[in-house]
Amino acid sequence: MANPKSFHEPVSGMAVPRFAGIATFMRLPHVAPKDAANIDIGIIGVPFDGGTTNRPGPRHGPRQVREMSQMVRRSNPALRITPYELANVADLGDAEVNPADLMDSMAKLEAYYARLVGMNVLPLSCGGDHLISYPILRALGAKRPVGMIHFDAHTDLNDSYFGGFKITHGTPFRRAIEDGVLDPKRTVQIGIRGSAYDYEDREYAASVGVRIITVEEFNDLGVARTMEIARKVAGDGPTYVSFDIDALDPAYAPGTGTPEVCGFTNREAIQMVRLLRGLNFVGADMVEVSPPFDPSGYTAYNGANILWELLCLMAEHVGKGR
Amino acid sequence: MANPKSFHEPVSGMAVPRFAGIATFMRLPHVAPKDAANIDIGIIGVPFDGGTTNRPGPRHGPRQVREMSQMVRRSNPALRITPYELANVADLGDAEVNPADLMDSMAKLEAYYARLVGMNVLPLSCGGDHLISYPILRALGAKRPVGMIHFDAHTDLNDSYFGGFKITHGTPFRRAIEDGVLDPKRTVQIGIRGSAYDYEDREYAASVGVRIITVEEFNDLGVARTMEIARKVAGDGPTYVSFDIDALDPAYAPGTGTPEVCGFTNREAIQMVRLLRGLNFVGADMVEVSPPFDPSGYTAYNGANILWELLCLMAEHVGKGR
Amino acid sequence: MANPKSFHEPVSGMAVPRFAGIATFMRLPHVAPKDAANIDIGIIGVPFDGGTTNRPGPRHGPRQVREMSQMVRRSNPALRITPYELANVADLGDAEVNPADLMDSMAKLEAYYARLVGMNVLPLSCGGDHLISYPILRALGAKRPVGMIHFDAHTDLNDSYFGGFKITHGTPFRRAIEDGVLDPKRTVQIGIRGSAYDYEDREYAASVGVRIITVEEFNDLGVARTMEIARKVAGDGPTYVSFDIDALDPAYAPGTGTPEVCGFTNREAIQMVRLLRGLNFVGADMVEVSPPFDPSGYTAYNGANILWELLCLMAEHVGKGR
Amino acid sequence: MANPKSFHEPVSGMAVPRFAGIATFMRLPHVAPKDAANIDIGIIGVPFDGGTTNRPGPRHGPRQVREMSQMVRRSNPALRITPYELANVADLGDAEVNPADLMDSMAKLEAYYARLVGMNVLPLSCGGDHLISYPILRALGAKRPVGMIHFDAHTDLNDSYFGGFKITHGTPFRRAIEDGVLDPKRTVQIGIRGSAYDYEDREYAASVGVRIITVEEFNDLGVARTMEIARKVAGDGPTYVSFDIDALDPAYAPGTGTPEVCGFTNREAIQMVRLLRGLNFVGADMVEVSPPFDPSGYTAYNGANILWELLCLMAEHVGKGR
Amino acid sequence: MANPKSFHEPVSGMAVPRFAGIATFMRLPHVAPKDAANIDIGIIGVPFDGGTTNRPGPRHGPRQVREMSQMVRRSNPALRITPYELANVADLGDAEVNPADLMDSMAKLEAYYARLVGMNVLPLSCGGDHLISYPILRALGAKRPVGMIHFDAHTDLNDSYFGGFKITHGTPFRRAIEDGVLDPKRTVQIGIRGSAYDYEDREYAASVGVRIITVEEFNDLGVARTMEIARKVAGDGPTYVSFDIDALDPAYAPGTGTPEVCGFTNREAIQMVRLLRGLNFVGADMVEVSPPFDPSGYTAYNGANILWELLCLMAEHVGKGR
Amino acid sequence: MANPKSFHEPVSGMAVPRFAGIATFMRLPHVAPKDAANIDIGIIGVPFDGGTTNRPGPRHGPRQVREMSQMVRRSNPALRITPYELANVADLGDAEVNPADLMDSMAKLEAYYARLVGMNVLPLSCGGDHLISYPILRALGAKRPVGMIHFDAHTDLNDSYFGGFKITHGTPFRRAIEDGVLDPKRTVQIGIRGSAYDYEDREYAASVGVRIITVEEFNDLGVARTMEIARKVAGDGPTYVSFDIDALDPAYAPGTGTPEVCGFTNREAIQMVRLLRGLNFVGADMVEVSPPFDPSGYTAYNGANILWELLCLMAEHVGKGR
Repeated sequence: MANPKSFHEPVSGMAVPRFAGIATFMRLPHVAPKDAANIDIGIIGVPFDGGTTNRPGPRHGPRQVREMSQMVRRSNPALRITPYELANVADLGDAEVNPADLMDSMAKLEAYYARLVGMNVLPLSCGGDHLISYPILRALGAKRPVGMIHFDAHTDLNDSYFGGFKITHGTPFRRAIEDGVLDPKRTVQIGIRGSAYDYEDREYAASVGVRIITVEEFNDLGVARTMEIARKVAGDGPTYVSFDIDALDPAYAPGTGTPEVCGFTNREAIQMVRLLRGLNFVGADMVEVSPPFDPSGYTAYNGANILWELLCLMAEHVGKGR
Repeated sequence: MANPKSFHEPVSGMAVPRFAGIATFMRLPHVAPKDAANIDIGIIGVPFDGGTTNRPGPRHGPRQVREMSQMVRRSNPALRITPYELANVADLGDAEVNPADLMDSMAKLEAYYARLVGMNVLPLSCGGDHLISYPILRALGAKRPVGMIHFDAHTDLNDSYFGGFKITHGTPFRRAIEDGVLDPKRTVQIGIRGSAYDYEDREYAASVGVRIITVEEFNDLGVARTMEIARKVAGDGPTYVSFDIDALDPAYAPGTGTPEVCGFTNREAIQMVRLLRGLNFVGADMVEVSPPFDPSGYTAYNGANILWELLCLMAEHVGKGR
Repeated sequence: MANPKSFHEPVSGMAVPRFAGIATFMRLPHVAPKDAANIDIGIIGVPFDGGTTNRPGPRHGPRQVREMSQMVRRSNPALRITPYELANVADLGDAEVNPADLMDSMAKLEAYYARLVGMNVLPLSCGGDHLISYPILRALGAKRPVGMIHFDAHTDLNDSYFGGFKITHGTPFRRAIEDGVLDPKRTVQIGIRGSAYDYEDREYAASVGVRIITVEEFNDLGVARTMEIARKVAGDGPTYVSFDIDALDPAYAPGTGTPEVCGFTNREAIQMVRLLRGLNFVGADMVEVSPPFDPSGYTAYNGANILWELLCLMAEHVGKGR
Repeated sequence: MANPKSFHEPVSGMAVPRFAGIATFMRLPHVAPKDAANIDIGIIGVPFDGGTTNRPGPRHGPRQVREMSQMVRRSNPALRITPYELANVADLGDAEVNPADLMDSMAKLEAYYARLVGMNVLPLSCGGDHLISYPILRALGAKRPVGMIHFDAHTDLNDSYFGGFKITHGTPFRRAIEDGVLDPKRTVQIGIRGSAYDYEDREYAASVGVRIITVEEFNDLGVARTMEIARKVAGDGPTYVSFDIDALDPAYAPGTGTPEVCGFTNREAIQMVRLLRGLNFVGADMVEVSPPFDPSGYTAYNGANILWELLCLMAEHVGKGR
Repeated sequence: MANPKSFHEPVSGMAVPRFAGIATFMRLPHVAPKDAANIDIGIIGVPFDGGTTNRPGPRHGPRQVREMSQMVRRSNPALRITPYELANVADLGDAEVNPADLMDSMAKLEAYYARLVGMNVLPLSCGGDHLISYPILRALGAKRPVGMIHFDAHTDLNDSYFGGFKITHGTPFRRAIEDGVLDPKRTVQIGIRGSAYDYEDREYAASVGVRIITVEEFNDLGVARTMEIARKVAGDGPTYVSFDIDALDPAYAPGTGTPEVCGFTNREAIQMVRLLRGLNFVGADMVEVSPPFDPSGYTAYNGANILWELLCLMAEHVGKGR
Repeated sequence: MANPKSFHEPVSGMAVPRFAGIATFMRLPHVAPKDAANIDIGIIGVPFDGGTTNRPGPRHGPRQVREMSQMVRRSNPALRITPYELANVADLGDAEVNPADLMDSMAKLEAYYARLVGMNVLPLSCGGDHLISYPILRALGAKRPVGMIHFDAHTDLNDSYFGGFKITHGTPFRRAIEDGVLDPKRTVQIGIRGSAYDYEDREYAASVGVRIITVEEFNDLGVARTMEIARKVAGDGPTYVSFDIDALDPAYAPGTGTPEVCGFTNREAIQMVRLLRGLNFVGADMVEVSPPFDPSGYTAYNGANILWELLCLMAEHVGKGR
């Protein structure tokens, strides 16, 4: 266990301007996974979009999120949390992937995350497309299925694409449930919306017990009641949080491959994330930022802020467990 | 009347990726107007912006909306409507216009829509600037004036511009009322806002009985009450729906010629459109998408989604009438 | 005192199209400060960003805001105010600054505004970065400290940067309070949010009596109650209004140097500004529009609309005082 | 005739930074046409694109060219000319146009330029689309036809569009020749290229004696020989210079409505313009900059530089004639 | 064999404006492959980028090239060729691909092109990444290896990536040579440049007899001599032309995945393509346009012009063979 | 002296895709200056633009150049140099600067470079604005003045701005000559062009012996002869190379603060840089890349390639000296 006095600190923008220096997540030190023994929370880039069936680009996500995360500072006044006082955090660099071979990438990622699990490092991942959650869940849920609070426009519970292809960014959670690493009864999906090919994914969700909160239902429930339901579904067990940036409206997140209108504002999204305080975190991710579709970087900036809020909550979780 | 079994289907993105193929509205077959005898609803591009007094570009609207509509799928889960099971729908291509002669364009468009009326095709049009609604209304209201539910930042009820010019995208509905093809007492305008040259258009509206719901009034009323009023104004008679994309806030629709701050979010807009369910539709349009002012395509994407929601409601209307 | 009949009028977009002509603020005549004797309200560009510690660019703000202000018309239907009937308004051009010498710029700006104060011209300024408010307040509060209603993501109450540097766009109001030109007890800051280096600025605010309304508090209070509190803090004394465009969410104002997520929509912002009606205005500014980060001009357009709403209220204030 | 001592000077960027101040052409004083009695060369914006048959936008040209011309300084080292020492130059603002009525605009522009001719002001115009050259030539050639050196990708010698429409930006020079205001035998067109509907325009050129130098011919001739031929065609008589920005390759001028590949580099273009030294100028224009298709402003910047080089040569011409 | 009188014609921009209508390649009719019996030259989109090892996006190429090809007209004045009088040409739509399975896509494409070969349709393909040339060559060279004139910044003769992966957009021609469908001794690569991992690909080229003309060699040779060499290498046998858009400099083609500085201007490129006149064409392609990296469309416009010049030459080839 | 076997190697894009990993210059290891004892060539970011008198932004240059340098590989086929086999190279991170205090930044930079000189590290710097060359030259020329080969649109030999301010990005080389750290007789400036405030800087150059080669002179001389002259001016003594990205034409480098038309193509520029082979390098820089004016990154990509070519030559210089 890390000694609090030696916890990593981000470089302060009051000392070194935020436009200066090599860009790491949150301006934290870069620590190689092999040196991560005393790391509590590792922020990891997963530059992979081989599961994308529509517009590509999330392979470029980690680098742009790193760049935009330079604008995040040390403390979170809304939560009154300074994560770097509660946990030892580092940028672990990018996980190894193979852009030319999807299944090889899946195997590499599962092995990578299994290693982190073995080192007791809580992973906070930055995609990459949503398929990356599948090998992560396989590593995290290997011993016992985890619950999940999932923000997204899409259920990602489809069965297959293009004549039977089973492993895409539209299918990860169906596969994870089938593999027994994700507990459907402790899974809630928030923000689901948009036109559909059919209703098969929703019927599957209903059949296995996944709770879907559509945007239309959210419009009636509001932020607080939505998160009450979500927390109740997830309960006290080990829980993963997955935030697909397309949960946000395209006005907030144009840089993504499959945008859907009528999404969340970032104020709603961040209020919801903050209501995850006290969750029994086993890890989290923020995925589907596609820089080629937003050179301005604001999609990535929203993504960096989602990571930041999650980091604060995970650091508190780590601190309490110490 | 079309045989439901032969209704057109969009190409599925589960079979052919959404980035593949020649872009038609909603991935529907392209049917020439002369072959539209068995079409219930025709989606029509009107690439004309000769009525524009400020920033040009809506002439490019239909093509960009077609492109962005590739991301719309087959069914509408929020409404539980699959339009292609209820009505025979096609992309009728673009109506003929003359970019060099405004009055010639007006004549050509009126004749085009009169022909569709004669074939019992419900027109769902994609502008083009707002002036296109004028010849459409002349065709639709030729026998009896229609009512209108109109979403817009502007009343488009001005009298003239630039020293007496009467036919611009700021005057269509004044002309339509004067011509007796639009019933002012069954007309409601929602979202009106922004600075004004004077109050003459609003005074005209009051004098002929057009009901204006400004954004400020909407802020007090909310979505549901606003639409209750609107439905009451329009009543059960034949009604046209006109959606100017500048009803949306510039954060959602930067690609338009005369944006006004304080507009609707797309969530508000789509909630309002859905509350048109059961309206006695004679046609609808979505206008003023100006691609040169939004190369990202998100304005067009919002526009494509407005068209999609309208299509679902119009298909249900057709289905009931069958 | 100006004779109402000779008040300046903006060029009408009904006569000269809005894309035509040399761009001045609101299409008003350009009047040199030396000829401003009969001007009630002067709109002034301050093309200075030498106080910027992060991303630069507000030096280009005045010109882009002038360009986008071409779309603002003559009357404000929501307020039923036509400012040009109540006050004599002009574009005074840009104040002189020295991009190569921060302290020289401070001196030049203070002298410039002192001259306007001497001529009884109410200044409505367009930045530039937020540091410009400091010399303005020194001029306006020279005889007696003024109150302030301040919209911003940041308190700008920091003490120093980069090893002791005291004059940056993060420190103007601390300096103004120390100088006795800004009354902290009559100062309210609305919209504060984002991550922080520490809590020192907020502790300073508390210690001197500045009232901070964070976005989180605003989420609970709503627009009306927030502005009730703000008006109560400012009271009836002479009050300055400072609007940092980063008070808006990046979806509305990407073109700024230090954006923070979870900001205001423009609808909220303009509703709040309108609730300043009847304030005892001594001047106002809108700052931090950075065109290089938003070539589309929508950030500047939102800024131009904030200036417009402020202009209407200031003109009413002038009219009442006549 | 102006007294050299009172010639207008641009505002120096060494004194007032180039990002400061209201943007006029070359930072010159704005002088109303009625006050232009002592002006030798008037720079005029013509914000009109009603003749455009393809992609619109040149109506926004003058304002963006004004903005980018802020970067042009006082002297031309390559030519060793300081135009402001040789001629009295001013920004005359924008000529009046009617965006809603093409023929009304033609009449207004012809009258405007006739007035300038009467005042002995040499016009240097900034379009707008290429149709604006037609009324200008009608004014300049009213007494005697002028010659023309014309840089363009297109001949603009077409007969008609869209079923007989005769007045578009593809037809101005055919009309001017028919009207007897442009002398075809003293007209040369440089840079012609691109695909064609047919060869009718080139056959017309040949039949009336217009000399066309295609890009392919230019590739063989080179800059110097091309301009020798051009100068020989134009001879010593009064000659107009018209520079369509699409003479440049799209890599240099993406912001135009009808770009054609294989165009000139700006180095070639400016070398050619400089070889017009000593021409008997009756006026010049630079047209077809379309800002919506190039928000970066570089097309306009190239255009501003073309205007600058022409200004230097015209000032020398004026100086010699004094 | 098609009857010349029934050859397809593009829609004229003199009749229907170029911004109107559904966008097909060159505004030609869309003909399904099964109906292509009387087609001489088929233009085919191949929306596939599964072979991309760096920045993705060419899957969106065909649609953007279709859009930009609307600006191409009927005749080629530089070549004096009107292809539609010499050959029957159509847009065959997009070939079927599987974005989730590279090897399945390879098989589908090879079968597709084999069918066209069987129908005597000359294929002119629009990528997609460069890997698409591999299955095309397998179809075209199935009976006898073809020669190739190849414009590119890269040899695409690498052996493998990412630990042995053999099928990527960096390896197609190595595979084609190994498969015996491409004759290395009749293959020339023009425009090779940029930094390199090693020299292995060049050594392979030398060992099998591929002639490489680097940009540095081209700088010395010039356009004419380069093409003399190229034509000599290819000789009179059946020859394929492959044009990777990254042969152009990034100033001309920013929208591509692996740009290299020091590339060709479009003038050089088109001059070289025109010097392919009389080649014994078996087909051609233009690949690697990546729209997400160039929303302006100019990369695609350059690509559309390359396709146009190739189409003219192929039509002449067809016409001669008739 | 470093042991060649331990020289740093960039991460290969054949192993780790170029979009993956934390971005350092050329994908080299990041080595802190204090650990640079065995480094031969240090690549250094200088994120400072406090000397900018026009459009800001070069403070963001180093990070965008790092990002774009991910596309540069290991070997230079044109030069047949693999720098990493000849010298030990590292990314030294960013030099410390103070964005709020120009003179403090000058002092910090001079000290930083003096330290590197003491460690025998050859500095290859990435700006930042051109003022950074001044403290670098003060460190490199402290013992004996250096010569300089300088590519730029501007001489940067001005005396002062804004009423006497002496230290800006328009004055560094005048100051360096005055300070005796730059030998004017061994200094050549290539690419000078554009309009001018006056001719004072050129007269100063002539008076102290700086050789200016304008673009106009270059047009006559060509690449080879220009560099012959330049090499002769610099001679065999220790020489610095400074490359201002605005030496390139805006078509190649729009992302810079003071672009001038008629600049070099990147092919010309890189040919010239390569002709520096064998120069007696004391260091080099590439400056004035301003990312806010080119979000596409191509300006930075050109800059990264200039750095790459310089790195190859400097490595060869180091290797020879070993």
